[in-house]
Amino acid sequence: MRRLIKNGILVDAEGESRQDLLIEDGTIRLCAPLIEPDSDCEVIDASGCYVMPGGIDVHTHFNIDVGIARSCDDFFTGTRAAACGGTTTIIDHMGFGPAGCDLHHQLNVYHQYAAEKAVIDYGFHGVIQHIDDAILDEMAPMVHEEGISSFKLYLTYNYKLGDADVLRALQRLHQVGALTTVHPENDAAIAFRRAELVAQGKTAPIYHARSRPLECEAEAIGRVINLAQLAGNAPLYIVHLSNGLGLEYIRLARAHQQPVWAETCPQYLLLDERCYLREDGLKYILSPPLRNVREQDRLWVGIADGAIDTVATDHCTFPYQQRIAKAQGDFTRCPNGLPGVENRMGLLFSAGVMSGRITPSRFVALTSANPARLFGLWPRKGNLMPGADADIVLFDPRQSDVITHARLHDNADYSPYEGFRCQGLPVLTMCRGEVVSRNGEFTGRAGYGRFLHRKPFDKHSHIQG
Amino acid sequence: MRRLIKNGILVDAEGESRQDLLIEDGTIRLCAPLIEPDSDCEVIDASGCYVMPGGIDVHTHFNIDVGIARSCDDFFTGTRAAACGGTTTIIDHMGFGPAGCDLHHQLNVYHQYAAEKAVIDYGFHGVIQHIDDAILDEMAPMVHEEGISSFKLYLTYNYKLGDADVLRALQRLHQVGALTTVHPENDAAIAFRRAELVAQGKTAPIYHARSRPLECEAEAIGRVINLAQLAGNAPLYIVHLSNGLGLEYIRLARAHQQPVWAETCPQYLLLDERCYLREDGLKYILSPPLRNVREQDRLWVGIADGAIDTVATDHCTFPYQQRIAKAQGDFTRCPNGLPGVENRMGLLFSAGVMSGRITPSRFVALTSANPARLFGLWPRKGNLMPGADADIVLFDPRQSDVITHARLHDNADYSPYEGFRCQGLPVLTMCRGEVVSRNGEFTGRAGYGRFLHRKPFDKHSHIQG
Amino acid sequence: MRRLIKNGILVDAEGESRQDLLIEDGTIRLCAPLIEPDSDCEVIDASGCYVMPGGIDVHTHFNIDVGIARSCDDFFTGTRAAACGGTTTIIDHMGFGPAGCDLHHQLNVYHQYAAEKAVIDYGFHGVIQHIDDAILDEMAPMVHEEGISSFKLYLTYNYKLGDADVLRALQRLHQVGALTTVHPENDAAIAFRRAELVAQGKTAPIYHARSRPLECEAEAIGRVINLAQLAGNAPLYIVHLSNGLGLEYIRLARAHQQPVWAETCPQYLLLDERCYLREDGLKYILSPPLRNVREQDRLWVGIADGAIDTVATDHCTFPYQQRIAKAQGDFTRCPNGLPGVENRMGLLFSAGVMSGRITPSRFVALTSANPARLFGLWPRKGNLMPGADADIVLFDPRQSDVITHARLHDNADYSPYEGFRCQGLPVLTMCRGEVVSRNGEFTGRAGYGRFLHRKPFDKHSHIQG
Amino acid sequence: MRRLIKNGILVDAEGESRQDLLIEDGTIRLCAPLIEPDSDCEVIDASGCYVMPGGIDVHTHFNIDVGIARSCDDFFTGTRAAACGGTTTIIDHMGFGPAGCDLHHQLNVYHQYAAEKAVIDYGFHGVIQHIDDAILDEMAPMVHEEGISSFKLYLTYNYKLGDADVLRALQRLHQVGALTTVHPENDAAIAFRRAELVAQGKTAPIYHARSRPLECEAEAIGRVINLAQLAGNAPLYIVHLSNGLGLEYIRLARAHQQPVWAETCPQYLLLDERCYLREDGLKYILSPPLRNVREQDRLWVGIADGAIDTVATDHCTFPYQQRIAKAQGDFTRCPNGLPGVENRMGLLFSAGVMSGRITPSRFVALTSANPARLFGLWPRKGNLMPGADADIVLFDPRQSDVITHARLHDNADYSPYEGFRCQGLPVLTMCRGEVVSRNGEFTGRAGYGRFLHRKPFDKHSHIQG
Repeated sequence: MRRLIKNGILVDAEGESRQDLLIEDGTIRLCAPLIEPDSDCEVIDASGCYVMPGGIDVHTHFNIDVGIARSCDDFFTGTRAAACGGTTTIIDHMGFGPAGCDLHHQLNVYHQYAAEKAVIDYGFHGVIQHIDDAILDEMAPMVHEEGISSFKLYLTYNYKLGDADVLRALQRLHQVGALTTVHPENDAAIAFRRAELVAQGKTAPIYHARSRPLECEAEAIGRVINLAQLAGNAPLYIVHLSNGLGLEYIRLARAHQQPVWAETCPQYLLLDERCYLREDGLKYILSPPLRNVREQDRLWVGIADGAIDTVATDHCTFPYQQRIAKAQGDFTRCPNGLPGVENRMGLLFSAGVMSGRITPSRFVALTSANPARLFGLWPRKGNLMPGADADIVLFDPRQSDVITHARLHDNADYSPYEGFRCQGLPVLTMCRGEVVSRNGEFTGRAGYGRFLHRKPFDKHSHIQG
Repeated sequence: MRRLIKNGILVDAEGESRQDLLIEDGTIRLCAPLIEPDSDCEVIDASGCYVMPGGIDVHTHFNIDVGIARSCDDFFTGTRAAACGGTTTIIDHMGFGPAGCDLHHQLNVYHQYAAEKAVIDYGFHGVIQHIDDAILDEMAPMVHEEGISSFKLYLTYNYKLGDADVLRALQRLHQVGALTTVHPENDAAIAFRRAELVAQGKTAPIYHARSRPLECEAEAIGRVINLAQLAGNAPLYIVHLSNGLGLEYIRLARAHQQPVWAETCPQYLLLDERCYLREDGLKYILSPPLRNVREQDRLWVGIADGAIDTVATDHCTFPYQQRIAKAQGDFTRCPNGLPGVENRMGLLFSAGVMSGRITPSRFVALTSANPARLFGLWPRKGNLMPGADADIVLFDPRQSDVITHARLHDNADYSPYEGFRCQGLPVLTMCRGEVVSRNGEFTGRAGYGRFLHRKPFDKHSHIQG
Repeated sequence: MRRLIKNGILVDAEGESRQDLLIEDGTIRLCAPLIEPDSDCEVIDASGCYVMPGGIDVHTHFNIDVGIARSCDDFFTGTRAAACGGTTTIIDHMGFGPAGCDLHHQLNVYHQYAAEKAVIDYGFHGVIQHIDDAILDEMAPMVHEEGISSFKLYLTYNYKLGDADVLRALQRLHQVGALTTVHPENDAAIAFRRAELVAQGKTAPIYHARSRPLECEAEAIGRVINLAQLAGNAPLYIVHLSNGLGLEYIRLARAHQQPVWAETCPQYLLLDERCYLREDGLKYILSPPLRNVREQDRLWVGIADGAIDTVATDHCTFPYQQRIAKAQGDFTRCPNGLPGVENRMGLLFSAGVMSGRITPSRFVALTSANPARLFGLWPRKGNLMPGADADIVLFDPRQSDVITHARLHDNADYSPYEGFRCQGLPVLTMCRGEVVSRNGEFTGRAGYGRFLHRKPFDKHSHIQG
Repeated sequence: MRRLIKNGILVDAEGESRQDLLIEDGTIRLCAPLIEPDSDCEVIDASGCYVMPGGIDVHTHFNIDVGIARSCDDFFTGTRAAACGGTTTIIDHMGFGPAGCDLHHQLNVYHQYAAEKAVIDYGFHGVIQHIDDAILDEMAPMVHEEGISSFKLYLTYNYKLGDADVLRALQRLHQVGALTTVHPENDAAIAFRRAELVAQGKTAPIYHARSRPLECEAEAIGRVINLAQLAGNAPLYIVHLSNGLGLEYIRLARAHQQPVWAETCPQYLLLDERCYLREDGLKYILSPPLRNVREQDRLWVGIADGAIDTVATDHCTFPYQQRIAKAQGDFTRCPNGLPGVENRMGLLFSAGVMSGRITPSRFVALTSANPARLFGLWPRKGNLMPGADADIVLFDPRQSDVITHARLHDNADYSPYEGFRCQGLPVLTMCRGEVVSRNGEFTGRAGYGRFLHRKPFDKHSHIQG
């Protein structure tokens, strides 16, 4: 089976050029200025469109059980929504298992979650709940046998690690070829402030933001950067960066050649603290919380100048009705998380590329090439070179639309981006050569997606700034 | 005559507090939490409003003759528009006079322009067209006898100065207590690129921007910063900063304690290069040109973190019809400049304060207190301390409106901000105790404004970061 | 009693000028270009010398009991050494008292230590061993009744505070007008590495440095900066900064207007890690440890550009023979601390002023004016204005000498600076008008020094950059 | 012919390891932990030594005619000195030819200078004296036919280019694959200050430094960085950086992914302005002049953190007696330039590696690998990979010596580093497998060195930070 994408502007993380692209057996075969189709070849006309590597969203939480609730998107609805938005691979951060469970426990659970459901390719990040010798020894087989080459530590929540355990984890993960990703917030400071607020009866949504100001996050970023250096210059990936001070710490580390990378999410680029003052403020409860526009500006600077490496979503869906029911007017009881996997590509294309902030190439770097390099998928994913999987998205910069949840494909009952206008739309998405969505409509099938056995972390990967 | 402003939130560059404010004979007499009016005292209710020092716009060009055209706002329509937008003082940058004229020549011309017309207080910046001993010797009397304690040099346009003359000017102006302000763009680089573009027939409005990229401006900023240091650490003020790289040069200089300050304008914070692609792109021709959103982000960071000191307008009105007629489809023939004196305060309040980027105090610093300190008007202007002129603006954060030129008070035939929604409006403006506008309507009179004999530059002025 | 210092170059933190200086009753009466002595006035000829405010060393540990040992300089030998080196005021960091003791406990102990012994004026920094409501409530009277307007927290050692307690301390100290000073090192990371090293039998002096790399310190600096911001932007003073990364965190905070100040010490500017490889490496055990020359370079940059505010000594004397006896070849058993109170001024003058790195004014800012402003002694100390205490040091830039412990006045049996050549010497030191040392010889007397009841912290103090 | 270097620590820009190294026919054949020599193989014992790529000094001026004098080292004495100091390749900056001459003119002259004389390999940088179409058109053949892939522009001196010509040169050189190197000093500012000084009779050596303060250089660096960006992001190489502010401009550009690199020289790292106050101050006249220790500190920070890419010498020898004779007490008449080609490697090894500022690998990057990559010699030079030229230097860190001109091999009559102690010495230097010096003694021969036809500039070269 062959498909030929003609007349488009091919974009990868290096640049853009007018070329045709030929696909055979789900793989890219050839890119050339002019390829003539032969008879059995389906031709897709991409005139006026950008032809780019399919999006890779390295931060989702499908099916996650957070104790007080379970997120309502599973690997079918979640990946379906992703596909409709131009994303062809997701890497899910596995949730916590029973206290004391080993690393394989959740891996087994998640394989079951995903196997029959995913409509696009997928992988998992390991999760570290506690540190002991058994866990440390389990890391190598997780990387080399199971294809789990990245893990997440939490510095807050129930399974937060203390500094000594963070050091042990970073050291071992570095040795076994894994990338450590970290949720950085200072637990003690949050608890201190939350207690003050709750004691004063301040439990409205805005106090969620007040209970964990940006310094809680920036502190933890600075801390873990130094711990990573102490652990032998272990590679480090900061998830869901929401503030500019933390970004400046990351810049400093990188200026000294420390291997630290940063991810942000559309919600931190486009939504701000004022959302918590709306009547439906509960819709926006997530951690780190939304900041103010000042922080948005600083993140955009990082998006443009290369200090931020990836844009993911942290997609984690709790319906608004569920939030209301759980919270009972108290932010501390509301489950945390926002949906968004379907809008990542479109929002960043519109607010980034079409606004002139970034080039199409930089867009590819942020949404696909850098994720592939950092998480062991390169060169199979994240580029348009012959031999790569034919994971492709076509963006048409001439089309525009207004986001409304009614037309999205997740299981939520709202979108935090309701009413946002996007200039430039993903009009066709292909995963390994198969069209999984067209003009925002789903055309794939459950179970098509494959588990990605990811390669160990490669420090020589050159991330595109 | 006494007026009492009750129930407002008083804001100066230091902070905000609930206080009443009593005015007597055009001067602020008292600020206190509760002031009871006596019988002959007019009471103004400011419930829910911010009570702030009136705006000081230190960059206007009323009546200016730029060779190919004369700007159409004179000191009546220009200051009327200013007053309706919450501005109570302007300092106009005088235009060039006949080649070889002395410094007093234009001062005399401008005194005549303004005397019977201005509806609010005003001053002038001197303009340096050439350097010789006579001009250098004229600087001291201009400062000390005429009250002209700031001057502008151009690094581009017909009267640009070479580096040696810039050094001589900076040295002498520093010695005589004047602040040097500079229009920084690299003339040779602009000429080089413009010639290339024109030779290729590229004369549409977008090529105005392409002919003077941000590096032309950044280069000149870096250059004049170093020349100022070479001139004995002369104080320096960069006008109409439009790009982030120049801002970084300014940050570097300040980090080394060099006295450099920066002004930006609403157009560089809110409009971008895409305007030149519109059918009415000529409306946006000014120099430096509009940049892209990436530069906006960087300027907003500087607005928020203190690296930018003032927001002025560079108000310089050439009607759209005149632009079309002059340009004849060629950007090189279109007069340069944008109107905006009426919208500066409202736009910055909305996009700055209401968005959460800056505090009301920082707004006052940017729009009033810093201009007053830098340009020899402090403490008479720029604050609410007893003894200061009762120049006051009331902002109501609950009101909002959409900008339309039909309701503005300048002489243009368009507004570059047409259709912009402002949250928070200046509902009352007072100059020396007299109400000069109310709810956007003009209530003042021509000739009320007084010339301000400004004090020499004081290096010990502590600008608010 | 009147003394007249003639023909010198007066230097304060603002600049320098050729003036005479008249002293009456221990107080500066007059500075003028030419003052003629009357008959009963002693004249001191300062031709060719700089006349500067006496040094203020805000970090000493006289008489301190660190558990495994007691430092061997008491308030007589310690202040005698200080005086001979040009220092006229010290502020001692009180040591820990019995577990659970209140804040007044150690204050009483230290008043007894110092009362009959000090030869120059002195104050004490409070020390926080634990946090509870009683301690918090005791802070206000310590500041306002006892004149203790600064306190120290430790993030390592036995009495380290957790993050929540740090927040509580910072918040309350800020409220009551005290400056919080912090010893920043990450305790968990140090313990982790020390255990690794000890397990490998690595107990030679160089492993002291290896057990607490600079990231341990930088991390804690970043952390406490953020906690100070969370505590309501509490003022913060970092003691004994030894590395460049921590300095960059401090720069970032200051760039955002956060009130954070930094102290470094001569040992971090002039000695490096290679000392630990010497046969007598134990002489150099202190915490933070000596770093390498790369960090020295970075600290010098901060000394020159204003990012570092003060130079103190952390003088804490354990004789070499005692070190050998205690350590028994194991760095973990060696008491920590270096002597140096007598050499601070001379070393910084030589390596700073005479090398061209800093001006004499900046030297005064670092050694006297900034300490006075930050710690509630201004304007009585730290300047040469009429009315100030006549605390004065004369530096002769033409004289030079080689440091040898045999000629120093402390109780140590070695100097870490043995063999260092200083260009420029303190030739006369005066405390409140009395000559306490001349040409390196002590001329004062025990008990002359007075306790300084310091004023609360004043955030409007403008530190000289 | 085979040679085997045994027992050494091999160092390249990536790291270090214990390996043996086999040479055959002047080329590196094999690196392996243990290589057994066969019978006809000469064995060199490198126990305790670092085995590193031979030094590449990309900035010499042999035989140069500067109008008022000709430098006294020719390609024999100059390269002989280089070889004795561990350098195996030089790239000479050709001097100006007759006014109006074409680019090949000086190339022909220099080929004659070098052909029979050079003892190690060599190349030339082209020199741009003026810009016109003929010169622009000559650039491509110079690069592709003559192997001259880098050129120098001057912003001061007689043949300085104006900004428009700089743009034209940068644009074309970029197009034809050449790297533009720039001598950045602001000519107008220097002329202005020099005229002031001379008018005041200030002609002693110290006024050389005062006539061209660091801002003259920093300005020009900022300017040419922006011009390079305007010329289509042309690659740019700043020669002989002497100040920290210029370095900060370079950092800014690189943070925005601009291809800019910086070279400094030992004299700017180790000598300072005080030299001009010595009786023999004329020995130190060069441009840019020596700065103060503050700038040294800042350059060392850049050496350590990667902001500076190369260390070269700008070797240009005018004997002290000639300087005295020419200057006649007036710095403006003294020829500019310092010798140093023999001491570059030893000084940087001692002050850099042995002090702990940089690793041996970073030393290789600065002295050999980065120069090779930037100037078209990689991978033939600058590394120890099989296939590379066997250009090798052995450094013994245990040996030390004091520099004295009596034992140097250039034609000068003094060394600016007389009396400097170096810890770590180059004990053996090999060029293409031949030993050209041993223990500081010359063992090579004139004419052995070959002209290097250098490759075009490759923007994908990854310089080691």
